[in-house]
Amino acid sequence: MNLILLFESDFTATDTVIINDRRFHHIRQFHQPAQGQRLKVGLLNGKTGSGIVISLTEQSITLEVLLENQPPAALPLTLLLALPRPKMLKRTLQTITSMGVKQIYLINSYKVDKSYWSTPVLQQDNLREQLLLGLEQSGDTVLPEVHLRKRFKPFVEDELPQIARQTRALVAHPYHASPCPGASTGETTLAIGPEGGFIPYEVEKFQATGFEAIHIGQRILRVENAVPVLLARLFPV
Amino acid sequence: MNLILLFESDFTATDTVIINDRRFHHIRQFHQPAQGQRLKVGLLNGKTGSGIVISLTEQSITLEVLLENQPPAALPLTLLLALPRPKMLKRTLQTITSMGVKQIYLINSYKVDKSYWSTPVLQQDNLREQLLLGLEQSGDTVLPEVHLRKRFKPFVEDELPQIARQTRALVAHPYHASPCPGASTGETTLAIGPEGGFIPYEVEKFQATGFEAIHIGQRILRVENAVPVLLARLFPV
Repeated sequence: MNLILLFESDFTATDTVIINDRRFHHIRQFHQPAQGQRLKVGLLNGKTGSGIVISLTEQSITLEVLLENQPPAALPLTLLLALPRPKMLKRTLQTITSMGVKQIYLINSYKVDKSYWSTPVLQQDNLREQLLLGLEQSGDTVLPEVHLRKRFKPFVEDELPQIARQTRALVAHPYHASPCPGASTGETTLAIGPEGGFIPYEVEKFQATGFEAIHIGQRILRVENAVPVLLARLFPV
Repeated sequence: MNLILLFESDFTATDTVIINDRRFHHIRQFHQPAQGQRLKVGLLNGKTGSGIVISLTEQSITLEVLLENQPPAALPLTLLLALPRPKMLKRTLQTITSMGVKQIYLINSYKVDKSYWSTPVLQQDNLREQLLLGLEQSGDTVLPEVHLRKRFKPFVEDELPQIARQTRALVAHPYHASPCPGASTGETTLAIGPEGGFIPYEVEKFQATGFEAIHIGQRILRVENAVPVLLARLFPV
C-alpha cells in the first residue's frame, strides 16, 4: 500500500478523515506511524496528497488531509483481455490497474473455460477490491472501468469497431505476427488472448476489424507476464 | 507447458523417450495427443525439436524424438534480485526464467525479512522445479544459474565489481533516478530491490560500483511486475 485511498465517507470534516477498516489495520501493522508523520493519501477518483497523523488508537487513525496533486497519468489504452482463470484474474486486474489502464474489457474466447465466468471474483464488490489494491500499490486514485463481454462474436462485430476507431489497434499473437511496435503516446487498443492464445478464427475477426497481429518474441509468456511486457513496450516511461 | 523438457534419463534409445512422471500426467490431461501427433520437446541444456507420439498408455507416453533447433536466445543479463517473500519468489523465478535470464543472484537487502532466507523454496530441488516450469512455459531448455548471497556488503564490495565490469550496470530505484534507458543487446547487470526498495545506503553502494539509478515512471509496481517491465524496456523483441 503505497497510497492510502480515501473515500468521501471517511471525512469527518473538510480536511479530516478517520479510518478504522482494512486500511487502518494495514497502516498499523506496516507503517506504524508516529503522531505528526505524513502518509501518502489520495481521494478515490480525485487528487493525491499527504495525511498528517493526528492520532492513532487501537481502533482507528485520524489524519489531517491535504490533497493538492494530480494522480499519475493514465495509459491511453483500452485493453481487451480474454478472461483468465480466477486466480490469475485477481493478480492480473491488480497489475493492469497498477500500470494505469482505465478501460478494461474482459472478453470471451474459444479457450476461455466456461466456468471462469461464474467465479465470485467477477462480482462487483470483488472486482472493485482488486482494482483498489492496484490503485493503492501504484499511488493512483482513478478507478478503472471493467466491462464483461461473455460473447465474442457480437462484441467483436458490433462494439469493437467503435472502440478501436482511430486507435493503434493490436492483437497479441505469437504466430504469423509482426514484432511488437515501439512506444507511443497515441490512443491504443490492445487485445490479449487466453493461455493457449486466440484461435485463428478469432485472430481473423480482429484483423477484419483493422487489428494488426503482433508478437513479443519467440518465448511464450504467461498472461500475467505478457501484460506488463506489452504495456512496457507500447508506452514510454 | 509449451515444451516438454526431456532429461538424458528419459531416453531408452538414441531417439526414444518414455515419460511417466508429472510431465506425463500433464500431457495426458491437457494435450491428450493422438498416436502420430507431434509435441514440442527439448533436451535440458540442449536442442529443441519434436516428439512424435508412439504410444500413450495409462502409465506412460513414448515419443520418438528429433532434436534439431537451438533454444531461444538468452538475455545478455545478470539479474541481482533482492530476495522476495517465498510466494512471490516462486512466481518470480518462473517469470525470470521464462524471459530468458540465465544468471540470477538472489541477494540480501535491509528490507528483506530475515525469515525469507529459511524458505524451503530456496532448497536446491525446489529452486530447480521453478526454473524447469519457467523453461517449459517459454519453450527454452537452458537452466539458469541461481546464486544465493545472504550478505549484502561483502557481495557488493567483493564480487559485484567483477560481475558488472564492462556491462551496462543499472539499479532500479523509484527516486532520484533517470528514466529507464532504451533497448540494447549489450551485456547488462540489473539490480532490483525488495518491496519498499533498496535503502539509500544500498543505492549508494551500487552507485559507487558504477551503477546508474533508473526508474520506470511515477507508479510503484510490485516486484513481480517491475521485473517483466524492466526486461521488456531494456532488451529488444
